Amino acid sequence: MRDIFNNELKQLGEDLVAMSGRVEQAITHAGVALLTADLGLAESVIADDLAIDALEQDLDERCVRLLAQQQPVATDLRVVVSALRMSASLERMGDLARHVAQVARLRYPAAAVPAGLESTFTQMQDAAVRVARRTTTLLETRDLDLAVSIEQDDDLLDQLHTDTFTAMLSGDWDRPAQVTVDVTLLGRYYERFGDHGVSVARRVGYLVTGDAAHALDPAAVRSG
Amino acid sequence: MRDIFNNELKQLGEDLVAMSGRVEQAITHAGVALLTADLGLAESVIADDLAIDALEQDLDERCVRLLAQQQPVATDLRVVVSALRMSASLERMGDLARHVAQVARLRYPAAAVPAGLESTFTQMQDAAVRVARRTTTLLETRDLDLAVSIEQDDDLLDQLHTDTFTAMLSGDWDRPAQVTVDVTLLGRYYERFGDHGVSVARRVGYLVTGDAAHALDPAAVRSG
Repeated sequence: MRDIFNNELKQLGEDLVAMSGRVEQAITHAGVALLTADLGLAESVIADDLAIDALEQDLDERCVRLLAQQQPVATDLRVVVSALRMSASLERMGDLARHVAQVARLRYPAAAVPAGLESTFTQMQDAAVRVARRTTTLLETRDLDLAVSIEQDDDLLDQLHTDTFTAMLSGDWDRPAQVTVDVTLLGRYYERFGDHGVSVARRVGYLVTGDAAHALDPAAVRSG
Repeated sequence: MRDIFNNELKQLGEDLVAMSGRVEQAITHAGVALLTADLGLAESVIADDLAIDALEQDLDERCVRLLAQQQPVATDLRVVVSALRMSASLERMGDLARHVAQVARLRYPAAAVPAGLESTFTQMQDAAVRVARRTTTLLETRDLDLAVSIEQDDDLLDQLHTDTFTAMLSGDWDRPAQVTVDVTLLGRYYERFGDHGVSVARRVGYLVTGDAAHALDPAAVRSG
């Protein structure tokens, strides 16, 4: 019985890693689609998001089944409840990658990111990919140094998000409203992506250290 | 033992109702603050959001304790896991009300909503308040007719959200970028508010009917 349970917990962990890997691919491709106006890639991200949603649903059902059949307590219970929450964050990160791809698709064949903000969005994209990649590795290795890096990249994303507002509200900004709308939404998508990455990182921190300060949900408290 | 458990489940239900009542008050006040440039009200919404966050944390801890101590199965387990998820949605709705209030505060003493879009945002606000109020009553009564109304108001919110884009992208739009940014963000906050209301409504539907179609999370699948 205990062996079966341990195997199931291990499988949960592997599924979170796999889900995070999918998110990593989604944001990577979404960013390339955005920055190079690649329609095919944008469409693949949009289509593949269904697979991330399905992974979440599957993982959640297994968590509930585990709770019912194994009635875990203490650390095991914490692992299962955390998996439920982390899968929700990862699913949401997949949605945000899809939203980035949708903006790229809407503007195709034009580029959604205007001249003058390419560098800012390239940096946002790089930071978001690092967040996703480190989230995957953190879930695999539980190396909390990665959690620190994820928080740092989230801070960077917040700063870059602020930079987009500074650019749009400067006297020089003379872009059509469509561009302002796109930049506003894209900035928010990337900023939220970072928040959810931190949320996963803190939950892993909580699992490893048992310290609830790691479990505060930045996706809930920090988004402006 | 069973009595204690039943009392605790009942308490969970009451706490969700109380939390939803707070969300209802938050979005009501946030909208008044937004539409009348009421700084004091905006600040109260921002401050009160901490209480909603605390309610979520408290509720979640009690859910985990219930899972550990009572080891519920079948319907009881579904109630506890659903409470965990509904509290996350309600917490997020509180955040979105806070975001609306923050935009009102940022623009004070000016109005954040430009002339020409007051009617659209008044309708969004009214729909959002109905969503919140019906969510509270649905959690209390489990009357699934309310779930249908919530879905309808969410559709209305999506339509009004689209209307804001139509206005901003029309040839007549000559507002400064700041206004375009505000309208873009406000529209998104209201649209997401509706999504999370539907998410709670479907979870109640799932609890009442046992039909998983009610449990699909629109906050995850519908936001564009």
